[in-house]
Amino acid sequence: MFVSDNVSRVCPEVMAAIEAANVGDAPSYGGDAASLELDRAFSSYFEKPVAAFPVGTGSAANAIALSLATTRFGAIYCHQSAHIETTECGGVESWSGGTKLVLLPGDQGGLSAETLRSALARLPRGGAQSATPAVVSITQGTEVGTVYSREQIAAISAVAHEHGMKVHMDGARFSNALVGLGCSAADTTWRAGVDILSYGATKNGGMSADAVVIFEPALKEQAGFLRRRNGQLYSKMRYLSVQLLALLRNNVAERNARNANAMAKRLAHALSQIPGARVLHPVEINEIFIVLPEAARQRLAEAGYTPRLRTALGDPHFRFVTAWDTSGEAVDRFVAAAAGEKQTVRAS
Amino acid sequence: MFVSDNVSRVCPEVMAAIEAANVGDAPSYGGDAASLELDRAFSSYFEKPVAAFPVGTGSAANAIALSLATTRFGAIYCHQSAHIETTECGGVESWSGGTKLVLLPGDQGGLSAETLRSALARLPRGGAQSATPAVVSITQGTEVGTVYSREQIAAISAVAHEHGMKVHMDGARFSNALVGLGCSAADTTWRAGVDILSYGATKNGGMSADAVVIFEPALKEQAGFLRRRNGQLYSKMRYLSVQLLALLRNNVAERNARNANAMAKRLAHALSQIPGARVLHPVEINEIFIVLPEAARQRLAEAGYTPRLRTALGDPHFRFVTAWDTSGEAVDRFVAAAAGEKQTVRAS
Amino acid sequence: MFVSDNVSRVCPEVMAAIEAANVGDAPSYGGDAASLELDRAFSSYFEKPVAAFPVGTGSAANAIALSLATTRFGAIYCHQSAHIETTECGGVESWSGGTKLVLLPGDQGGLSAETLRSALARLPRGGAQSATPAVVSITQGTEVGTVYSREQIAAISAVAHEHGMKVHMDGARFSNALVGLGCSAADTTWRAGVDILSYGATKNGGMSADAVVIFEPALKEQAGFLRRRNGQLYSKMRYLSVQLLALLRNNVAERNARNANAMAKRLAHALSQIPGARVLHPVEINEIFIVLPEAARQRLAEAGYTPRLRTALGDPHFRFVTAWDTSGEAVDRFVAAAAGEKQTVRAS
Amino acid sequence: MFVSDNVSRVCPEVMAAIEAANVGDAPSYGGDAASLELDRAFSSYFEKPVAAFPVGTGSAANAIALSLATTRFGAIYCHQSAHIETTECGGVESWSGGTKLVLLPGDQGGLSAETLRSALARLPRGGAQSATPAVVSITQGTEVGTVYSREQIAAISAVAHEHGMKVHMDGARFSNALVGLGCSAADTTWRAGVDILSYGATKNGGMSADAVVIFEPALKEQAGFLRRRNGQLYSKMRYLSVQLLALLRNNVAERNARNANAMAKRLAHALSQIPGARVLHPVEINEIFIVLPEAARQRLAEAGYTPRLRTALGDPHFRFVTAWDTSGEAVDRFVAAAAGEKQTVRAS
Repeated sequence: MFVSDNVSRVCPEVMAAIEAANVGDAPSYGGDAASLELDRAFSSYFEKPVAAFPVGTGSAANAIALSLATTRFGAIYCHQSAHIETTECGGVESWSGGTKLVLLPGDQGGLSAETLRSALARLPRGGAQSATPAVVSITQGTEVGTVYSREQIAAISAVAHEHGMKVHMDGARFSNALVGLGCSAADTTWRAGVDILSYGATKNGGMSADAVVIFEPALKEQAGFLRRRNGQLYSKMRYLSVQLLALLRNNVAERNARNANAMAKRLAHALSQIPGARVLHPVEINEIFIVLPEAARQRLAEAGYTPRLRTALGDPHFRFVTAWDTSGEAVDRFVAAAAGEKQTVRAS
Repeated sequence: MFVSDNVSRVCPEVMAAIEAANVGDAPSYGGDAASLELDRAFSSYFEKPVAAFPVGTGSAANAIALSLATTRFGAIYCHQSAHIETTECGGVESWSGGTKLVLLPGDQGGLSAETLRSALARLPRGGAQSATPAVVSITQGTEVGTVYSREQIAAISAVAHEHGMKVHMDGARFSNALVGLGCSAADTTWRAGVDILSYGATKNGGMSADAVVIFEPALKEQAGFLRRRNGQLYSKMRYLSVQLLALLRNNVAERNARNANAMAKRLAHALSQIPGARVLHPVEINEIFIVLPEAARQRLAEAGYTPRLRTALGDPHFRFVTAWDTSGEAVDRFVAAAAGEKQTVRAS
Repeated sequence: MFVSDNVSRVCPEVMAAIEAANVGDAPSYGGDAASLELDRAFSSYFEKPVAAFPVGTGSAANAIALSLATTRFGAIYCHQSAHIETTECGGVESWSGGTKLVLLPGDQGGLSAETLRSALARLPRGGAQSATPAVVSITQGTEVGTVYSREQIAAISAVAHEHGMKVHMDGARFSNALVGLGCSAADTTWRAGVDILSYGATKNGGMSADAVVIFEPALKEQAGFLRRRNGQLYSKMRYLSVQLLALLRNNVAERNARNANAMAKRLAHALSQIPGARVLHPVEINEIFIVLPEAARQRLAEAGYTPRLRTALGDPHFRFVTAWDTSGEAVDRFVAAAAGEKQTVRAS
Repeated sequence: MFVSDNVSRVCPEVMAAIEAANVGDAPSYGGDAASLELDRAFSSYFEKPVAAFPVGTGSAANAIALSLATTRFGAIYCHQSAHIETTECGGVESWSGGTKLVLLPGDQGGLSAETLRSALARLPRGGAQSATPAVVSITQGTEVGTVYSREQIAAISAVAHEHGMKVHMDGARFSNALVGLGCSAADTTWRAGVDILSYGATKNGGMSADAVVIFEPALKEQAGFLRRRNGQLYSKMRYLSVQLLALLRNNVAERNARNANAMAKRLAHALSQIPGARVLHPVEINEIFIVLPEAARQRLAEAGYTPRLRTALGDPHFRFVTAWDTSGEAVDRFVAAAAGEKQTVRAS
């Protein structure tokens, strides 16, 4: 509980879609009706013709999306805390055949257009000495739970496109960011210059399905090869595709994300009342990063929670994550445990 | 229908297990109870302590299993029709960091110990000129629907081990082969010298889950890295693990495979009665390869079936595949359509 | 002696050119006069504007040339005895980011257009299942010392180009083949459809320099990256470039090759007189493959020669190679030793 | 002139050795006397049994040395300005099969043990999330012309070895650093904990030969494969090996380096007298980094020099490099041109 949104179960609409798909034979390897529907469903969702296909994990989505956006000699510019750098064990570099990640600093987990511009200015010109700037990858929401505004994305994209680079969005928590921003899916992606997206569904009520969504048609060319080579061409693809369709239909993805975000705000507000507590970053999606007094940690442990103190960077702190199915009661119980009170700390 | 076992749905036990798993939170990335149970369940099934973990596709299973069994300079000896050569777009070579596949001929889709021995004898000695013999990979059942006997596997393994090589089994249709052989899972794997197995579940009633099963403990070392790097560390792993457990429990895997095999035999027997029909390989699992007269093809097309004529190698022929849920009626209807009769051809 | 043309020293013109280059400063990384001259010198030699650059070994030339000619998902069709398959330890596949070699049989070490055509016909269509046919690589002269005629090359190229493939020539012994054919360098390369060439100089009187010669301009694009990444951008490039220029000037390359070829013919003719001797392939360049009686081997060993019996394929036999500086006397002494006579066997 | 030490010619001893090697046949691929002598010569030089082999470029040396020191899942810690990061286009990562470079800051172009220690402390523990710390790579002398002391190297090595990591030294200017330090080759390498060395010869009077020197015997295992696969197994290896032997013999390497270093000091001292000039880093080898007034740049350009203003990082400045054959007169002329005087600025 609160350890990650990955610990949550599958939402009812996704499970119902899987059950409904489990009837009779269906063509394999994407020939089924649900898989064939994906392009249209995502195109409608994003208000633009796109190509989309399912993958099994977010790491696979990122590694394929970024491979599509660069030659094997490209440099991928990203924040130094980006998941592709810290947690994917070289998958992007490896699947792409030899690209390099260029790590940039940035406040609150995000890149700025200015940081990107000055990094590009430092690059030795006109040669093949190092990898060539090829893609900017931004994580929406970021690794510290903040959100890029449309204007920030557009500014980054403008710098990237000026330099002939593509723009990738790691949207592992895309829906959480979207409802935080309150704009359309189109506004925060291709209208702001994004060329290719890793669309996260698993953390947001899905089972084991994310998607690559390609806005820039020129990037589609090698998708078939990359999916095959890297074990991402699912034989019974229908069971992945229906998960994605179920989340896109009737705004289920947004509903799920909205609950998670609201619970994170509630949790952050309540925990921040504990003397000595300090929230480290604006709570803009479903994650909070917070310094808590040692007594609070002990009380949580006694109550059966097992938050892990993060000591690698900055002040030792905790990360708490809420999910599509986090209830207000669960938040309140957790807060009460941390505060050492019997449910008397009330979230707003 | 009959196009592939991949077109079939998920069997009831697997679907029930997924539904049962969909309760509350569970630790992610393999910390859940079902994932933690996998080693024990496979150890019990194989009568030996093994390590096992789920992957999303058979290609991913093969690429990880073979990467574990070789350095990046290794040669992987396999049949020229092996799936890893013909259908995985270089995934094995790529994930392993640069190995080579050495293709060997062999009757009925299978390697012989003698072919392997003479291929190894041709290798230039004592140098780093080419890749070093590292693994033999055999497909059980083979790509033409035949099965290696325990004795054949043991003979191949003996040659491999003599030469310091490991033995990998691509068991995409492992259960079909097992029930064909009528021996234990242990007998046809590690007792016959197999070091590492790609265990197929998806084709046999699963949804999207296969497994890597490691018999030789020394091969486990880099598994964590390979899973991470290659997008195969599932956050909500419980939903894959329960599929595997459901198939291992109560011999569901064998039951599923037994039906598929029986239907294949029934289909082959009946189709072979059609004048001009000729079955190309012994029907030992759930696949049949058969030459049919053009009139039969036309009648099938008129009845709504769309078998694809395979013209690449040898006589133009068809491949038909049965599944865990293929019914005798479905076989009979298909045969009747092919034979141009109204259900009058009866399977044995 | 006769073990390989790699054991020979550097020819006087090459050594003189290196010494002449050793004066004062010169721009590094290819900015020197000799390196800048390469494109023009090779363009003149091949009667067509080409791009050319030096590399340190033939393996490096092959791996860069083939990487330029294919995406990372390409299949490279070559003879099963091709040096890129047997002796380069996966360099081509590795530098290119994941291509596959497709091995074809062929008499006398060579491919035929017909073999290529039928191999391409076997390929599963329209998919990304395996690597896509991208390049045909032929070795001129072949690994058994034979030569492709212009007509044979043109026929192979026609099939390749029909299928959208490029044509690569591994010309480790290009000059030897050229003087054997008696046509122009242009005739046997781009006029016959060759798109990119590994031009061999080291074996033919050079020190440590071969070249990549690009006939098809579209293949140049990634050369800078590939040279950098793979340690083939020489800082003091002048010392490699002058070797190539020295061989191109005044037909030194052809003169060197002509001597080697003549000595091979002389050697083959004389050895074939020994009772029990049998020449296995037409002697069309500077290599001979010959079965010799055991007594001859012993006499050679007693005389201090150390020919290695090749037992891997076919009849146990020897390979003898002559070089730019092989003298008639050396041939005669060798033959006399093999024949057990005191210089009484005379070459024609 | 002064643009790089790569623009310099080959020193007399190296040229003489090449000429002396050019006699008759010699075994290829390292079987010649000079190549066989390398292990002994380097062992004597380093006062310890080592394995050593020649490569054609420093980039090749680094990529092979680092590949030997890590699995394909390793992280290589280096200074953010390291040549392997900025100038080798991903060669290390690519040849090693997927490692990652971890970039660290550091004053004067160098790492400190403390920086390394704190970087390692930040690493997430116990998992395969990212690459595993495997090697520290330090450049001696650094990319800004400074030198690590023995104590600094030993301190870095101690931290590395504590963490199970190996230590690599990129010694492209090893001899320059060595004579700057005034200690033995052993003291500054293995006695200070270095496990493997890229030994630079090309910049120091060689033609096209550097070496990999392996102090830690366990790192030798895959060298044969790596050299083959990556085009670094030279057929006429004698011509590379004799270059290395010539530099090791009679302290030629040190003599060459001593001249280069002395000329750099003379140049730095004299240029620093120009009003507005500012030397940016201690001049400890043969490179100087200096801010010059615009008028000086113009005067140099008028005098035919073409220094390139470096604007990427920090104050716009120039890099000047001296070589084994730089004369005092050349330095004085250059300084006079920069100072706008007729030889009246005198170096000390």
